[in-house]
Amino acid sequence: VRTLVARGDDVQVISREVPRIRAPGATFHSLDLITDRDATRELVCELQPERLLHLAWTTSPGEYWTSMDNLDWVGASLSLFRAFTEAGGRRAVMAGSCAEYDWSREVLDEVDTPTHPATLYGTAKHSLRLVVEAAARNSGVSLCWGRLFFLYGPEEAPGRLVSSVLDALRLGEVAPVSEGRQERDFLHVDDAAVAFVELLDASVVGPVNVGSGVGVSVREVVATLADLVGRPDLVRYGTRPTPASEPDRLVADVRRLHATTNFRPEFDLRSGLIDTLTRTPAPHV
Amino acid sequence: VRTLVARGDDVQVISREVPRIRAPGATFHSLDLITDRDATRELVCELQPERLLHLAWTTSPGEYWTSMDNLDWVGASLSLFRAFTEAGGRRAVMAGSCAEYDWSREVLDEVDTPTHPATLYGTAKHSLRLVVEAAARNSGVSLCWGRLFFLYGPEEAPGRLVSSVLDALRLGEVAPVSEGRQERDFLHVDDAAVAFVELLDASVVGPVNVGSGVGVSVREVVATLADLVGRPDLVRYGTRPTPASEPDRLVADVRRLHATTNFRPEFDLRSGLIDTLTRTPAPHV
Repeated sequence: VRTLVARGDDVQVISREVPRIRAPGATFHSLDLITDRDATRELVCELQPERLLHLAWTTSPGEYWTSMDNLDWVGASLSLFRAFTEAGGRRAVMAGSCAEYDWSREVLDEVDTPTHPATLYGTAKHSLRLVVEAAARNSGVSLCWGRLFFLYGPEEAPGRLVSSVLDALRLGEVAPVSEGRQERDFLHVDDAAVAFVELLDASVVGPVNVGSGVGVSVREVVATLADLVGRPDLVRYGTRPTPASEPDRLVADVRRLHATTNFRPEFDLRSGLIDTLTRTPAPHV
Repeated sequence: VRTLVARGDDVQVISREVPRIRAPGATFHSLDLITDRDATRELVCELQPERLLHLAWTTSPGEYWTSMDNLDWVGASLSLFRAFTEAGGRRAVMAGSCAEYDWSREVLDEVDTPTHPATLYGTAKHSLRLVVEAAARNSGVSLCWGRLFFLYGPEEAPGRLVSSVLDALRLGEVAPVSEGRQERDFLHVDDAAVAFVELLDASVVGPVNVGSGVGVSVREVVATLADLVGRPDLVRYGTRPTPASEPDRLVADVRRLHATTNFRPEFDLRSGLIDTLTRTPAPHV
């Protein structure tokens, strides 16, 4: 939102919650896409947006993989997309997920890696894409589907990797983690935001991975964080199990993202974690 | 509905329209699954149905292949399914379509034929199945997905093959049809209804073709109908184009249906068309 406002776009934001971000210049509409479907449709009809960036979904850590809320989000997203096309919308970018892919592959790309989601969350995202892509083709809307990988950054929900380790270390508590040998494609949330704005400006249609293109082990994330906080002594590797279903390596092939946009991540792991640390308030003891 | 009532089931019907069928013993609820979502959820929560048979969808001839209503039906179906599982439902059967398959194959089966829908309608059905199957696995509901092929019978909507040819012939008007060499799997609507009731009783999960297993050419359907009405002279083969995208042959592999239920069609083409003719009121001249 800040990026779009900064360059002078007329930004209309639909959000359930009172916005926590400071973005003077953007107009906020407090609506729940699931329960306020009629009001959402009326608003979209009135605003006649040219472009749509749809990121909303259920993302409660530990729950969203299997939550029945995934069903409502498919429906709400389809309803929003229909309203957008009927209001004359031209370009839509929606948030997909690396969870749509077959995770027996290590480097995931949009063309050759099969979509074979193992979870309800991944299945819901995958299925939504199939329907909106078909609807977009029929209605002449340009649709891009940005597949997010593993995000971190300031204002992360409690219970996620970086937020939970950071909180423990700053409280002087032991941080139990897994062996952490598994490699993931981590991206700072601000970089992900910029990538989505770039995709909104681009003309590429279909799925595009939004990642760093670099595999980093969970252990390296934790070790860097512990080093920055100055408490490597508190980390206990191997005291949490690594689920057998966790793949060893999941990295985004970012050739399509690089070929179709000017996006390059601003942060590497270390600078991204420094930024996270700086912008995250210390926990109350 | 008649079949279920006849055997003593407690049948609760949700329908938009005032029911045209006579089914004393069934309770009708006039609700629109798309616009009356909250009321539907409350009703399902109150009724606590053990079993769900979900057939509703947009089916306007000529329009449903590309209609944006397909998006709403995905959402409404997911919403209904969630309400059903949360009300303690055990067994659900939903209507899928042969349009989910790759139509470059001639005999379509549930295991070996790829799902590759060419239309928004087929994509919506396919995507809905993926999500409800994943949700059913998570919530312990037994879900079966009956894939319908080509239906005909009394009370058919105007504009479909049998209804339009029958109306023309009975009015003494010329009936323009295509060459009609393409073969399809036709099933009388009463047989399809019985098959769905059988699937509701069965324990089979996943997709099951609901068809006759026999390929019949469109020309044979029209010729039989013209013979029964006594006006073969009015049929003009080849005066309507056969779209290039129309496949030559689409027939259901019904081995799974036969292996998991006692269903066998009551009607063959001739007896099914006689029944249709008998039960269809003559058009007003």
